[in-house]
Amino acid sequence: MTYCLGILLPSGLILASDSRSSAGVDQIAVVKKLALFEVPGERVIAILSAGNLATTQAVITMIRQYTRHKQDSAAGGENRDILAARTMFDVAQIVGGVLREVLRLNRSFVEPYGDPNGSFIVAGQIAGEPHRLFQVYSAGNFVEASGRTQFLQLGETKYGKPILDRALQEASGLDEAAKLALLSFDATVRSNLSVAPPIDLLRYEADSFSTKHLAKYDSHHPYWADLRQRYSDGLSALVASLPAPDFPA
Amino acid sequence: MTYCLGILLPSGLILASDSRSSAGVDQIAVVKKLALFEVPGERVIAILSAGNLATTQAVITMIRQYTRHKQDSAAGGENRDILAARTMFDVAQIVGGVLREVLRLNRSFVEPYGDPNGSFIVAGQIAGEPHRLFQVYSAGNFVEASGRTQFLQLGETKYGKPILDRALQEASGLDEAAKLALLSFDATVRSNLSVAPPIDLLRYEADSFSTKHLAKYDSHHPYWADLRQRYSDGLSALVASLPAPDFPA
Repeated sequence: MTYCLGILLPSGLILASDSRSSAGVDQIAVVKKLALFEVPGERVIAILSAGNLATTQAVITMIRQYTRHKQDSAAGGENRDILAARTMFDVAQIVGGVLREVLRLNRSFVEPYGDPNGSFIVAGQIAGEPHRLFQVYSAGNFVEASGRTQFLQLGETKYGKPILDRALQEASGLDEAAKLALLSFDATVRSNLSVAPPIDLLRYEADSFSTKHLAKYDSHHPYWADLRQRYSDGLSALVASLPAPDFPA
Repeated sequence: MTYCLGILLPSGLILASDSRSSAGVDQIAVVKKLALFEVPGERVIAILSAGNLATTQAVITMIRQYTRHKQDSAAGGENRDILAARTMFDVAQIVGGVLREVLRLNRSFVEPYGDPNGSFIVAGQIAGEPHRLFQVYSAGNFVEASGRTQFLQLGETKYGKPILDRALQEASGLDEAAKLALLSFDATVRSNLSVAPPIDLLRYEADSFSTKHLAKYDSHHPYWADLRQRYSDGLSALVASLPAPDFPA
Protein backbone atom coordinates (compact mmCIF):
# COMPACT_ATOMS: atom_id res chain seq x y z
CA MET A 1 0.00 0.00 0.00
CA THR A 2 0.90 3.65 -0.01
CA TYR A 3 -0.29 6.87 1.50
CA CYS A 4 -0.15 10.12 -0.48
CA LEU A 5 -1.76 13.40 0.52
CA GLY A 6 -2.25 16.75 -1.20
CA ILE A 7 -3.65 19.82 0.59
CA LEU A 8 -4.85 22.95 -1.21
CA LEU A 9 -4.63 26.18 0.81
CA PRO A 10 -5.03 29.85 -0.12
CA SER A 11 -1.32 30.30 0.58
CA GLY A 12 -0.06 27.25 -1.32
CA LEU A 13 0.14 23.47 -1.33
CA ILE A 14 1.29 20.73 1.03
CA LEU A 15 2.20 17.45 -0.67
CA ALA A 16 3.40 14.34 1.11
CA SER A 17 4.06 10.68 0.34
CA ASP A 18 5.40 7.66 2.16
CA SER A 19 8.09 5.33 0.77
CA ARG A 20 7.02 1.74 1.28
CA SER A 21 6.47 -0.55 -1.66
CA SER A 22 5.37 -4.05 -0.81
CA ALA A 23 4.40 -7.17 -2.67
CA GLY A 24 3.71 -9.39 0.31
CA VAL A 25 5.37 -9.15 3.69
CA ASP A 26 8.71 -10.58 2.54
CA GLN A 27 9.16 -8.31 -0.46
CA ILE A 28 9.31 -4.72 0.66
CA ALA A 29 11.31 -1.86 -0.75
CA VAL A 30 11.86 1.86 -0.24
CA VAL A 31 10.73 3.91 -3.23
CA LYS A 32 10.19 7.59 -3.84
CA LYS A 33 6.60 8.39 -4.76
CA LEU A 34 6.99 12.14 -5.20
CA ALA A 35 8.28 13.29 -8.61
CA LEU A 36 9.10 16.97 -9.17
CA PHE A 37 9.25 18.90 -12.44
CA GLU A 38 10.42 22.47 -12.25
CA VAL A 39 11.16 25.49 -14.40
CA PRO A 40 12.45 27.93 -11.77
CA GLY A 41 10.35 31.08 -11.66
CA GLU A 42 7.82 29.71 -14.17
CA ARG A 43 6.33 26.38 -13.05
CA VAL A 44 6.46 23.71 -10.37
CA ILE A 45 4.70 20.38 -10.93
CA ALA A 46 4.58 17.56 -8.38
CA ILE A 47 3.22 14.09 -9.15
CA LEU A 48 2.54 11.64 -6.32
CA SER A 49 1.97 7.97 -7.20
CA ALA A 50 0.03 5.06 -5.74
CA GLY A 51 -0.80 1.61 -6.99
CA ASN A 52 1.12 -0.89 -9.11
CA LEU A 53 4.76 0.21 -9.00
CA ALA A 54 5.58 -0.95 -12.54
CA THR A 55 2.61 1.06 -13.84
CA THR A 56 3.38 4.24 -11.91
CA GLN A 57 7.12 4.09 -12.64
CA ALA A 58 6.38 3.67 -16.35
CA VAL A 59 4.04 6.67 -16.31
CA ILE A 60 6.51 8.92 -14.47
CA THR A 61 9.43 7.79 -16.64
CA MET A 62 7.51 8.37 -19.88
CA ILE A 63 6.41 11.82 -18.68
CA ARG A 64 10.01 12.64 -17.81
CA GLN A 65 11.23 11.41 -21.20
CA TYR A 66 8.61 13.52 -22.98
CA THR A 67 10.04 16.63 -21.29
CA ARG A 68 13.53 15.80 -22.67
CA HIS A 69 12.78 14.51 -26.15
CA LYS A 70 10.21 16.93 -27.44
CA GLN A 71 9.69 15.09 -30.72
CA ASP A 72 8.57 11.89 -28.91
CA SER A 73 5.94 13.68 -26.92
CA ALA A 74 3.51 14.40 -29.77
CA ALA A 75 1.16 11.38 -29.66
CA GLY A 76 -1.79 11.56 -32.01
CA GLY A 77 -1.32 15.29 -32.31
CA GLU A 78 -1.31 16.07 -28.57
CA ASN A 79 1.86 17.38 -27.01
CA ARG A 80 2.72 15.39 -23.88
CA ASP A 81 5.46 17.63 -22.55
CA ILE A 82 4.19 18.81 -19.15
CA LEU A 83 6.87 21.53 -19.15
CA ALA A 84 5.14 22.98 -22.22
CA ALA A 85 1.56 22.53 -20.96
CA ARG A 86 -0.33 25.81 -20.61
CA THR A 87 -2.36 24.94 -17.52
CA MET A 88 -2.33 22.46 -14.64
CA PHE A 89 -5.57 21.07 -16.08
CA ASP A 90 -3.61 20.19 -19.23
CA VAL A 91 -0.90 18.58 -17.07
CA ALA A 92 -3.50 16.40 -15.33
CA GLN A 93 -4.86 15.43 -18.74
CA ILE A 94 -1.39 14.42 -19.93
CA VAL A 95 -0.84 12.28 -16.81
CA GLY A 96 -4.23 10.61 -17.33
CA GLY A 97 -3.47 10.01 -21.00
CA VAL A 98 -0.07 8.45 -20.36
CA LEU A 99 -1.61 6.28 -17.62
CA ARG A 100 -4.27 5.08 -20.08
CA GLU A 101 -1.57 4.17 -22.59
CA VAL A 102 0.54 2.27 -20.04
CA LEU A 103 -2.53 0.33 -18.89
CA ARG A 104 -3.65 -0.36 -22.46
CA LEU A 105 -0.26 -1.93 -23.17
CA ASN A 106 0.14 -3.84 -19.89
CA ARG A 107 -3.24 -4.59 -18.32
CA SER A 108 -3.91 -7.97 -19.90
CA PHE A 109 -0.38 -9.23 -19.15
CA VAL A 110 -0.38 -8.06 -15.53
CA GLU A 111 -3.89 -8.97 -14.38
CA PRO A 112 -3.17 -12.70 -13.95
CA TYR A 113 -0.61 -11.69 -11.29
CA GLY A 114 -2.30 -8.74 -9.61
CA ASP A 115 -3.90 -5.32 -9.95
CA PRO A 116 -2.21 -3.23 -12.67
CA ASN A 117 -3.95 0.03 -11.69
CA GLY A 118 -2.30 3.22 -10.55
CA SER A 119 -3.47 6.66 -9.47
CA PHE A 120 -1.84 10.04 -9.00
CA ILE A 121 -2.03 13.34 -7.22
CA VAL A 122 -0.97 16.08 -9.63
CA ALA A 123 -0.36 19.52 -8.17
CA GLY A 124 1.57 22.69 -8.72
CA GLN A 125 1.45 26.05 -10.40
CA ILE A 126 2.14 27.44 -13.87
CA ALA A 127 2.75 31.18 -14.20
CA GLY A 128 -0.47 32.95 -15.15
CA GLU A 129 -2.82 30.77 -13.12
CA PRO A 130 -3.23 29.92 -9.43
CA HIS A 131 -1.75 26.83 -7.79
CA ARG A 132 -3.99 23.78 -8.30
CA LEU A 133 -4.45 20.23 -7.01
CA PHE A 134 -5.85 17.24 -8.92
CA GLN A 135 -6.41 13.55 -8.37
CA VAL A 136 -6.03 11.32 -11.43
CA TYR A 137 -7.93 8.03 -11.17
CA SER A 138 -6.86 4.75 -12.73
CA ALA A 139 -9.39 5.37 -15.52
CA GLY A 140 -7.34 8.42 -16.51
CA ASN A 141 -10.09 10.88 -15.56
CA PHE A 142 -9.52 13.34 -12.72
CA VAL A 143 -11.06 15.71 -10.17
CA GLU A 144 -9.80 19.01 -8.81
CA ALA A 145 -9.63 20.16 -5.19
CA SER A 146 -11.28 23.39 -4.04
CA GLY A 147 -11.91 25.35 -0.84
CA ARG A 148 -14.66 22.86 -0.03
CA THR A 149 -12.62 19.77 -0.84
CA GLN A 150 -9.27 20.88 0.44
CA PHE A 151 -7.40 17.62 0.51
CA LEU A 152 -7.05 14.59 -1.74
CA GLN A 153 -5.62 11.24 -0.69
CA LEU A 154 -4.31 8.10 -2.39
CA GLY A 155 -3.83 4.59 -1.06
CA GLU A 156 -4.29 3.80 2.60
CA THR A 157 -6.44 6.89 3.26
CA LYS A 158 -8.65 6.15 6.24
CA TYR A 159 -6.29 6.18 9.25
CA GLY A 160 -5.02 9.66 8.45
CA LYS A 161 -8.35 11.24 7.55
CA PRO A 162 -9.88 12.04 10.97
CA ILE A 163 -7.17 14.50 12.03
CA LEU A 164 -7.58 16.36 8.72
CA ASP A 165 -11.39 16.35 8.96
CA ARG A 166 -11.13 17.67 12.49
CA ALA A 167 -8.39 20.27 12.35
CA LEU A 168 -7.81 21.43 8.78
CA GLN A 169 -9.60 24.71 8.02
CA GLU A 170 -10.12 26.50 4.72
CA ALA A 171 -7.89 29.29 5.99
CA SER A 172 -5.21 27.10 7.61
CA GLY A 173 -1.67 28.28 6.96
CA LEU A 174 1.07 26.24 5.28
CA ASP A 175 2.93 25.47 8.51
CA GLU A 176 -0.20 24.31 10.30
CA ALA A 177 -1.19 22.14 7.32
CA ALA A 178 2.35 20.69 7.14
CA LYS A 179 2.10 19.66 10.79
CA LEU A 180 -1.35 18.12 10.21
CA ALA A 181 -0.04 16.28 7.15
CA LEU A 182 2.82 14.77 9.17
CA LEU A 183 0.44 13.82 12.00
CA SER A 184 -1.86 12.23 9.41
CA PHE A 185 1.11 10.19 8.20
CA ASP A 186 2.10 9.31 11.75
CA ALA A 187 -1.42 7.99 12.44
CA THR A 188 -1.22 5.86 9.28
CA VAL A 189 2.30 4.56 9.92
CA ARG A 190 1.40 3.57 13.49
CA SER A 191 -1.74 1.69 12.47
CA ASN A 192 -0.69 0.08 9.19
CA LEU A 193 2.47 -1.82 8.29
CA SER A 194 2.14 -1.12 4.55
CA VAL A 195 2.89 2.60 4.96
CA ALA A 196 6.35 3.62 6.17
CA PRO A 197 8.88 6.46 6.30
CA PRO A 198 10.79 8.22 4.92
CA ILE A 199 8.02 10.75 4.34
CA ASP A 200 8.69 13.24 1.52
CA LEU A 201 7.06 16.59 2.22
CA LEU A 202 6.85 19.56 -0.15
CA ARG A 203 5.66 22.91 1.24
CA TYR A 204 4.89 24.99 -1.84
CA GLU A 205 4.26 28.71 -1.34
CA ALA A 206 1.90 30.19 -3.92
CA ASP A 207 3.71 32.21 -6.61
CA SER A 208 7.15 31.08 -5.40
CA PHE A 209 7.68 28.73 -8.39
CA SER A 210 10.25 26.98 -6.25
CA THR A 211 10.66 23.54 -4.62
CA LYS A 212 13.18 24.65 -2.05
CA HIS A 213 10.87 23.78 0.88
CA LEU A 214 11.27 20.04 0.41
CA ALA A 215 12.03 17.75 3.33
CA LYS A 216 12.56 14.03 3.88
CA TYR A 217 11.64 12.61 7.29
CA ASP A 218 12.92 9.18 8.20
CA SER A 219 12.10 7.52 11.54
CA HIS A 220 15.11 9.06 13.22
CA HIS A 221 14.71 12.61 11.90
CA PRO A 222 14.80 14.84 15.00
CA TYR A 223 11.80 16.93 13.94
CA TRP A 224 9.66 13.90 13.08
CA ALA A 225 10.59 12.10 16.32
CA ASP A 226 9.96 15.25 18.38
CA LEU A 227 6.61 15.92 16.67
CA ARG A 228 5.40 12.35 17.30
CA GLN A 229 6.45 12.47 20.94
CA ARG A 230 4.98 15.90 21.67
CA TYR A 231 1.74 15.01 19.93
CA SER A 232 1.32 11.70 21.77
CA ASP A 233 2.14 13.30 25.12
CA GLY A 234 -0.20 16.21 24.40
CA LEU A 235 -2.98 13.90 23.30
CA SER A 236 -2.72 11.77 26.44
CA ALA A 237 -2.82 14.91 28.59
CA LEU A 238 -5.81 16.19 26.60
CA VAL A 239 -7.73 12.92 27.04
CA ALA A 240 -6.90 12.88 30.75
CA SER A 241 -8.29 16.43 31.05
CA LEU A 242 -11.67 15.50 29.52
CA PRO A 243 -14.48 14.71 31.96
CA ALA A 244 -15.30 11.02 32.36
CA PRO A 245 -18.70 9.76 31.17
CA ASP A 246 -21.41 9.83 33.78
CA PHE A 247 -23.21 6.59 34.63
CA PRO A 248 -25.84 5.71 37.23
CA ALA A 249 -24.04 5.20 40.56
CA MET B 1 -21.43 -0.16 7.45
CA THR B 2 -21.07 -0.34 11.20
CA TYR B 3 -18.48 0.33 13.82
CA CYS B 4 -18.24 -1.84 16.94
CA LEU B 5 -15.43 -1.79 19.48
CA GLY B 6 -14.51 -3.95 22.46
CA ILE B 7 -11.69 -3.07 24.86
CA LEU B 8 -10.24 -5.49 27.41
CA LEU B 9 -8.73 -3.91 30.53
CA PRO B 10 -7.50 -5.32 33.82
CA SER B 11 -10.43 -3.54 35.51
CA GLY B 12 -13.16 -4.58 33.09
CA LEU B 13 -14.54 -4.09 29.60
CA ILE B 14 -15.63 -1.19 27.40
CA LEU B 15 -18.05 -2.12 24.62
CA ALA B 16 -19.50 0.29 22.10
CA SER B 17 -21.51 0.21 18.87
CA ASP B 18 -23.05 2.70 16.48
CA SER B 19 -26.64 2.52 15.22
CA ARG B 20 -26.66 3.07 11.47
CA SER B 21 -27.89 0.40 9.12
CA SER B 22 -27.73 1.26 5.46
CA ALA B 23 -28.51 -0.46 2.19
CA GLY B 24 -27.67 2.35 -0.17
CA VAL B 25 -27.88 6.06 0.63
CA ASP B 26 -31.69 6.21 0.44
CA GLN B 27 -32.36 3.28 2.73
CA ILE B 28 -30.96 3.96 6.17
CA ALA B 29 -32.30 2.94 9.53
CA VAL B 30 -31.42 3.16 13.22
CA VAL B 31 -30.77 -0.23 14.76
CA LYS B 32 -29.34 -1.41 18.04
CA LYS B 33 -26.23 -3.52 17.58
CA LEU B 34 -25.52 -4.23 21.25
CA ALA B 35 -27.45 -7.15 22.75
CA LEU B 36 -27.20 -7.85 26.48
CA PHE B 37 -27.81 -11.09 28.36
CA GLU B 38 -27.65 -10.97 32.12
CA VAL B 39 -28.08 -13.09 35.22
CA PRO B 40 -27.55 -10.49 37.94
CA GLY B 41 -24.67 -11.39 40.19
CA GLU B 42 -23.72 -14.42 38.05
CA ARG B 43 -23.07 -13.47 34.41
CA VAL B 44 -23.13 -10.59 31.95
CA ILE B 45 -22.80 -11.30 28.22
CA ALA B 46 -22.73 -8.61 25.53
CA ILE B 47 -22.90 -9.38 21.80
CA LEU B 48 -22.12 -6.65 19.26
CA SER B 49 -23.08 -7.22 15.63
CA ALA B 50 -21.79 -6.14 12.23
CA GLY B 51 -22.59 -7.18 8.69
CA ASN B 52 -25.79 -8.28 6.99
CA LEU B 53 -28.64 -7.13 9.26
CA ALA B 54 -30.92 -10.06 8.45
CA THR B 55 -28.10 -12.47 9.33
CA THR B 56 -27.12 -10.78 12.59
CA GLN B 57 -30.72 -10.25 13.72
CA ALA B 58 -31.46 -13.93 13.06
CA VAL B 59 -28.41 -14.99 15.09
CA ILE B 60 -29.26 -12.74 18.05
CA THR B 61 -32.94 -13.71 17.97
CA MET B 62 -32.16 -17.43 17.87
CA ILE B 63 -29.69 -17.05 20.74
CA ARG B 64 -32.31 -15.17 22.73
CA GLN B 65 -34.94 -17.83 21.99
CA TYR B 66 -32.54 -20.58 23.09
CA THR B 67 -32.26 -18.91 26.50
CA ARG B 68 -36.05 -18.98 26.88
CA HIS B 69 -36.98 -22.35 25.42
CA LYS B 70 -34.38 -24.65 26.84
CA GLN B 71 -35.61 -27.72 24.95
CA ASP B 72 -35.04 -26.01 21.53
CA SER B 73 -31.45 -25.16 22.33
CA ALA B 74 -30.06 -28.68 22.19
CA ALA B 75 -28.92 -29.02 18.57
CA GLY B 76 -27.03 -32.18 17.75
CA GLY B 77 -26.37 -32.76 21.44
CA GLU B 78 -24.86 -29.32 22.15
CA ASN B 79 -26.71 -26.97 24.43
CA ARG B 80 -27.05 -23.55 22.83
CA ASP B 81 -28.33 -21.66 25.87
CA ILE B 82 -25.67 -19.01 26.56
CA LEU B 83 -27.17 -18.46 30.01
CA ALA B 84 -26.21 -22.06 30.80
CA ALA B 85 -22.75 -21.98 29.17
CA ARG B 86 -19.93 -22.66 31.61
CA THR B 87 -17.36 -20.29 30.12
CA MET B 88 -17.20 -17.27 27.79
CA PHE B 89 -15.26 -19.52 25.39
CA ASP B 90 -18.34 -21.75 25.24
CA VAL B 91 -20.51 -18.67 24.64
CA ALA B 92 -18.33 -17.61 21.69
CA GLN B 93 -18.58 -21.14 20.33
CA ILE B 94 -22.38 -21.04 20.56
CA VAL B 95 -22.49 -17.68 18.72
CA GLY B 96 -20.20 -19.04 16.00
CA GLY B 97 -22.30 -22.20 15.70
CA VAL B 98 -25.60 -20.32 15.38
CA LEU B 99 -24.00 -18.00 12.82
CA ARG B 100 -22.86 -21.01 10.77
CA GLU B 101 -26.39 -22.42 10.85
CA VAL B 102 -27.99 -19.12 9.77
CA LEU B 103 -25.50 -18.79 6.90
CA ARG B 104 -25.94 -22.42 5.87
CA LEU B 105 -29.69 -21.86 5.52
CA ASN B 106 -29.53 -18.41 3.87
CA ARG B 107 -26.25 -17.92 2.01
CA SER B 108 -27.27 -19.25 -1.40
CA PHE B 109 -30.53 -17.26 -1.37
CA VAL B 110 -28.95 -13.98 -0.26
CA GLU B 111 -25.74 -13.94 -2.31
CA PRO B 112 -27.41 -12.86 -5.59
CA TYR B 113 -28.43 -9.65 -3.76
CA GLY B 114 -25.44 -8.95 -1.54
CA ASP B 115 -23.06 -10.16 1.12
CA PRO B 116 -24.81 -12.42 3.67
CA ASN B 117 -21.90 -12.44 6.14
CA GLY B 118 -21.95 -11.22 9.70
CA SER B 119 -19.46 -10.96 12.54
CA PHE B 120 -19.65 -10.39 16.28
CA ILE B 121 -17.84 -9.15 19.32
CA VAL B 122 -18.71 -11.40 22.26
CA ALA B 123 -17.67 -10.22 25.70
CA GLY B 124 -18.56 -10.49 29.32
CA GLN B 125 -17.96 -12.48 32.46
CA ILE B 126 -19.29 -15.66 33.99
CA ALA B 127 -18.77 -16.24 37.73
CA GLY B 128 -15.69 -18.38 38.30
CA GLU B 129 -13.62 -16.95 35.45
CA PRO B 130 -12.26 -13.51 34.52
CA HIS B 131 -13.98 -11.13 32.09
CA ARG B 132 -13.14 -12.01 28.47
CA LEU B 133 -13.42 -10.53 24.99
CA PHE B 134 -13.80 -12.43 21.69
CA GLN B 135 -14.28 -11.66 18.01
CA VAL B 136 -16.37 -14.17 16.06
CA TYR B 137 -15.66 -14.15 12.32
CA SER B 138 -18.18 -14.88 9.61
CA ALA B 139 -16.68 -18.38 9.33
CA GLY B 140 -17.87 -19.03 12.89
CA ASN B 141 -14.33 -19.29 14.27
CA PHE B 142 -13.08 -16.74 16.77
CA VAL B 143 -10.09 -15.09 18.49
CA GLU B 144 -9.71 -13.79 22.04
CA ALA B 145 -8.25 -10.47 23.16
CA SER B 146 -5.38 -10.26 25.65
CA GLY B 147 -3.12 -7.70 27.28
CA ARG B 148 -1.19 -7.53 24.01
CA THR B 149 -4.27 -7.28 21.78
CA GLN B 150 -6.43 -5.14 23.96
CA PHE B 151 -9.10 -4.09 21.52
CA LEU B 152 -11.13 -5.75 18.79
CA GLN B 153 -13.12 -3.93 16.13
CA LEU B 154 -15.84 -4.74 13.62
CA GLY B 155 -16.94 -2.93 10.47
CA GLU B 156 -15.53 0.47 9.57
CA THR B 157 -12.44 0.04 11.73
CA LYS B 158 -9.71 2.25 10.30
CA TYR B 159 -10.76 5.81 11.13
CA GLY B 160 -11.06 5.05 14.83
CA LYS B 161 -7.90 2.96 15.20
CA PRO B 162 -5.14 5.61 15.43
CA ILE B 163 -6.39 7.17 18.67
CA LEU B 164 -6.55 3.72 20.28
CA ASP B 165 -3.11 2.73 18.96
CA ARG B 166 -1.71 5.99 20.30
CA ALA B 167 -3.38 6.43 23.67
CA LEU B 168 -4.71 3.11 24.98
CA GLN B 169 -2.37 1.44 27.43
CA GLU B 170 -2.44 -2.02 28.94
CA ALA B 171 -3.08 -0.43 32.35
CA SER B 172 -5.61 2.20 31.18
CA GLY B 173 -8.59 2.58 33.49
CA LEU B 174 -12.22 2.10 32.51
CA ASP B 175 -13.04 5.82 32.41
CA GLU B 176 -10.04 6.64 30.25
CA ALA B 177 -10.85 3.78 27.88
CA ALA B 178 -14.50 4.89 27.72
CA LYS B 179 -13.37 8.37 26.67
CA LEU B 180 -11.01 6.91 24.06
CA ALA B 181 -13.80 4.66 22.76
CA LEU B 182 -16.12 7.64 22.31
CA LEU B 183 -13.35 9.65 20.60
CA SER B 184 -12.69 6.67 18.34
CA PHE B 185 -16.39 6.70 17.41
CA ASP B 186 -16.35 10.46 16.92
CA ALA B 187 -13.43 10.15 14.48
CA THR B 188 -15.34 7.49 12.55
CA VAL B 189 -18.65 9.35 12.52
CA ARG B 190 -16.97 12.54 11.28
CA SER B 191 -15.12 10.81 8.46
CA ASN B 192 -17.68 8.24 7.29
CA LEU B 193 -21.39 8.63 6.59
CA SER B 194 -22.14 4.95 7.12
CA VAL B 195 -21.47 5.12 10.87
CA ALA B 196 -23.80 7.23 13.01
CA PRO B 197 -25.10 7.83 16.54
CA PRO B 198 -26.70 6.93 18.83
CA ILE B 199 -23.65 5.21 20.29
CA ASP B 200 -24.39 2.50 22.85
CA LEU B 201 -21.65 2.23 25.46
CA LEU B 202 -21.32 -0.39 28.18
CA ARG B 203 -18.75 0.15 30.92
CA TYR B 204 -18.42 -3.22 32.63
CA GLU B 205 -16.53 -3.38 35.91
CA ALA B 206 -14.84 -6.73 36.50
CA ASP B 207 -16.72 -8.90 39.01
CA SER B 208 -19.72 -6.55 39.12
CA PHE B 209 -21.94 -8.92 37.09
CA SER B 210 -24.05 -5.89 36.29
CA THR B 211 -24.94 -3.84 33.19
CA LYS B 212 -25.96 -0.72 35.10
CA HIS B 213 -23.20 1.38 33.50
CA LEU B 214 -24.90 1.50 30.12
CA ALA B 215 -25.31 4.76 28.22
CA LYS B 216 -26.77 5.87 24.91
CA TYR B 217 -25.25 8.93 23.24
CA ASP B 218 -27.19 10.60 20.45
CA SER B 219 -25.83 13.67 18.60
CA HIS B 220 -27.43 16.05 21.08
CA HIS B 221 -26.41 14.26 24.27
CA PRO B 222 -24.73 16.94 26.42
CA TYR B 223 -21.77 14.75 27.37
CA TRP B 224 -21.12 13.61 23.78
CA ALA B 225 -21.43 17.17 22.40
CA ASP B 226 -19.17 18.54 25.16
CA LEU B 227 -16.57 15.78 24.67
CA ARG B 228 -16.42 16.39 20.90
CA GLN B 229 -16.07 20.13 21.34
CA ARG B 230 -13.43 19.96 24.09
CA TYR B 231 -11.44 17.39 22.14
CA SER B 232 -11.51 19.37 18.89
CA ASP B 233 -10.57 22.60 20.68
CA GLY B 234 -7.82 20.84 22.63
CA LEU B 235 -6.47 19.18 19.50
CA SER B 236 -6.31 22.46 17.59
CA ALA B 237 -4.49 24.08 20.51
CA LEU B 238 -2.12 21.12 20.69
CA VAL B 239 -1.32 21.28 16.97
CA ALA B 240 -0.80 25.04 17.22
CA SER B 241 1.67 24.48 20.09
CA LEU B 242 3.84 22.07 18.07
CA PRO B 243 6.89 23.55 16.38
CA ALA B 244 6.57 24.08 12.63
CA PRO B 245 8.77 22.05 10.29
CA ASP B 246 12.06 23.63 9.45
CA PHE B 247 12.92 24.25 5.79
CA PRO B 248 15.84 25.96 4.10
CA ALA B 249 15.17 29.73 4.18
